[in-house]
Formats: sequence, C-alpha cells, structure tokens
Amino acid sequence: MFEAQTALAQQMADASGELILKYFRCPVDISDKADASPVTEADKKAELLMRSMIERYFPDDGIIGEEYGRKKENAEFVWVLDPIDGTQSFVAGVPLFGTLIALLQNGKPVLGLINQPYTKERWIGVTGTRTTFNGSVIRTRRCAELQQAVLFSTADKQMFADPDDKRRFTALCDRVKTARFSTDCYGYALLAAGCADIVCEADMKLYDYAALMPIIAGAGGMMSDWEGNPLSENKGAGHILALGDPLLLPAALEALNQ
Amino acid sequence: MFEAQTALAQQMADASGELILKYFRCPVDISDKADASPVTEADKKAELLMRSMIERYFPDDGIIGEEYGRKKENAEFVWVLDPIDGTQSFVAGVPLFGTLIALLQNGKPVLGLINQPYTKERWIGVTGTRTTFNGSVIRTRRCAELQQAVLFSTADKQMFADPDDKRRFTALCDRVKTARFSTDCYGYALLAAGCADIVCEADMKLYDYAALMPIIAGAGGMMSDWEGNPLSENKGAGHILALGDPLLLPAALEALNQ
Repeated sequence: MFEAQTALAQQMADASGELILKYFRCPVDISDKADASPVTEADKKAELLMRSMIERYFPDDGIIGEEYGRKKENAEFVWVLDPIDGTQSFVAGVPLFGTLIALLQNGKPVLGLINQPYTKERWIGVTGTRTTFNGSVIRTRRCAELQQAVLFSTADKQMFADPDDKRRFTALCDRVKTARFSTDCYGYALLAAGCADIVCEADMKLYDYAALMPIIAGAGGMMSDWEGNPLSENKGAGHILALGDPLLLPAALEALNQ
Repeated sequence: MFEAQTALAQQMADASGELILKYFRCPVDISDKADASPVTEADKKAELLMRSMIERYFPDDGIIGEEYGRKKENAEFVWVLDPIDGTQSFVAGVPLFGTLIALLQNGKPVLGLINQPYTKERWIGVTGTRTTFNGSVIRTRRCAELQQAVLFSTADKQMFADPDDKRRFTALCDRVKTARFSTDCYGYALLAAGCADIVCEADMKLYDYAALMPIIAGAGGMMSDWEGNPLSENKGAGHILALGDPLLLPAALEALNQ
C-alpha cells in the first residue's frame, strides 16, 4: 500500500537530508520564533524543497508544514512535514535531530518516515505493514513493568511550562529505571527499534507526532494521550505517551494520573 | 611528536570500534557495578583488546583502565583507557558514547583520542599540535559571555549526589543560554569542534577526562576544576569545567562559587 507515496517520501528524505547536512555544524542564521525554539535556514529551505516535490507528484494533496503552514488541509491526502525536529540538537551539533514526513488519509496517519541524515538512519512505517529501519524489519521490546523501563523525553523547562504537566511527568519519571532527555524524534525511533520503552511529552504539534504513529504501530508499540485516549489534533493539548509494550499502559497511566 | 603512539591509538580505536559495534543495539549482558553504571560485555572485551595491543607494541608502558585497573602506573608513559564512556547512551541505543584513549607522560596527558564508532567520528589531540576531527583541524568558538553559552553535562541524579555540587552546578546552568544533558564525552568533543561553550561535571575519574585534555587544549579551549585550578588526579574530587573560550573562565567561576 502507498508504494508511490512511500517512494516519494524516500526521495524527499534523500533530497532534504543532503540540503540539511550542508548547514549542520556550520554557523547558521538562527532566528527566534514565537515558541522560542531556534529555526535554521536549513529548516525553511528543506520544507520548501519537500513542498515543491509534493506539488509536482501529488498536486491534489494537501500540505501541513511546521514552517510554511497549511494548504488544502481538507484534501483526502495531506502531507505533514517537520524538516528539522530537534532544532536544539541541530544547533548544538548533536546528530539526534530528524526530518519527519507523514501522510494522512482522511486525517489519519497512514505513512511515517523519520530520517537522520548525519547517521544515515531511516525509519519507515506504513499502515498495515511492518516498520523498517534502513530496510530491515524492527519491533519494540517487551517490558511489562514500569521499574524496568527506559524512558525518553525531550522535556525541558519550556516543554513543561504547565506545573501540572510537570508534576505528572515527574511522577512517571520517578517510577522508571532510567530517564533520558533531549531525545526529540530520535527517542521514538529508538523505541520502535526496541532500545527504549516509554516516550512521554507535552505540547506536541501534529507535525511533531504524525510521522511517529505508523512507525510505532508497525513495530508493535502504541501511542495515546496521557489518559490513554487515541491521539487527535484537537484533544489532549499535545500530550503524548508512546509505549513499546502496550502492556505497560495501565501502570504508566496510573503514574501519570495518581 | 608521539607519531608511533598516535598510530597505535588509531589502531586501537579501529579494532575496539569494530568489536563494540557488534554489541550496539543488541541485547547485552548488563551487570551492575559498585557505582551503579551499566557495564557491558563490549566494555570489558574492548579494554582487554586494547591492553593486549599496548602490551605488544609498548611493553614497558603502564596501563590504567576503567575495567581492569592499574599496571605499572609509575612508568614514564602510562595509557589510560575508557572503552565505553557513556554506557547509559550505549545501552539505550544512542550513538553518543565514545571510546577514550589517553597517553600520560610523567602523569601529564600528552595524547588523547575520542572515537565514536557508530557515526565514524574521531577526535585526536597531541600536545603541541592542533586537534583534528576525522583528519581536519578544528578549533573552539569564541563566547565571552555566559548568557550566550551552550552548556553540556552528563549530569544525572547520581552525578550530583552532593547537594553542594548540585547547587553550584544549578547556579551555572541558570546563567547560560541553553543546557543539554546526557552528553558524556561527546559534549567535550563538540566543544572542541566549536559547537558548544561549556562542559561542567563532577565525580569524573582520570579515565573519564585524561583523553579530553589534549583534545580541548589543542583546539584552543581549556579545562580546570571548579575553582579554576589545573586538573590533577588527587584534587578537586573530579570536578571538571571545560571552556571553549578561556575568556569565559571568570564568569563561569563566579557562577559556580557565588
């Protein structure tokens, strides 16, 4: 399913990755955005490049991008783009940022791609198929007990600006084996590959998580909000809970909602 | 200077990197150590491999290794080995761990190598020469003001077990532009490459920092303890302050000692 779209997503990842690497670990023009995250020239140019590729091959499809907004967002198929997820990593020279490409069908993510251009790592999830990492099938690992779990989060002061979010997140962190931060999309990618068990975040936008959903589902994991409800763009204020082993859900929800 | 020893360090990095990658992102046997950090089979095997290479080519030299202790530590030349710095990263599948190889002459680090086998990145510093990254000369960047600085630290609960250390470290973090954690040796490597400005840590052992010293010095940066004194194995309880721009020293010390 979605062979032509998957081929395009691969080409978009190749082309954007080549462009982005020209700016990595070089002095770049960093401008402030309303949400105070750094935006690089690479971010903008990569989104324009990917938009032009979609417009050429699938001119009827809609596009939602982090940098250049929404176009035909009510089309059956809508592409969702985050050219550089993890801009803090990018500007610090840490190769854990990624390019996120998703395709929604009637609002539901059916294709997701995470590309890490520097390490040449690529995760692809397509609804109804098994997730791959650089072409090989991967799956999440078993971890039915919270105290054995490795948790990842991007979590910084901005992210948990809400004191209630911070309290709930801290309660979960206190019950896992280890917690690691500043992971951005790379945390979800490693969860899909069976290296971690939980990713927990707040304030996530559609372009931050749409690509992750088919990747994690196709690897055997699950994603929900902090109450265990399915993710939707208009609910849950962007609270994300990703689990490698769905059996962890009751314990994770209990910790978040105690 | 030290051409033969640099050639051996390169060979040790090649051989240990190949061995270590066989264990990366695979289920490994993790045993607990006294300090509660995970130790992998890769860690032990890589140290044995590097020790055997030193014993073959420089049989009179001493060796200090994280896993297998000290041998001839009073020799003129002593090698200092940390096969996997950043074991938490390693076990979580994050390619920011590194192999550290240092050579001391009369107790002073004269050669340092950081190898990141997964990303194929290698930093080499030799006293009296310019530091290289994958063969190209690198240097630290200018940053004379604390509020513009990017700070890295491995910092976790274990690391700042001492409440006074935690208070001092927090005071420094509160005055920089951004702080990023879980960086291990990769933070120092990026500082040498001009991507970050400060690394601040406590409880560092000789095998954690000996290799970093020639790398940072040869890139134009400096390292001291939290009082600004030169590092030595027996003073400062392993408190490390690394600066890309030595002009930052007064402001960083003021924040740490306010």
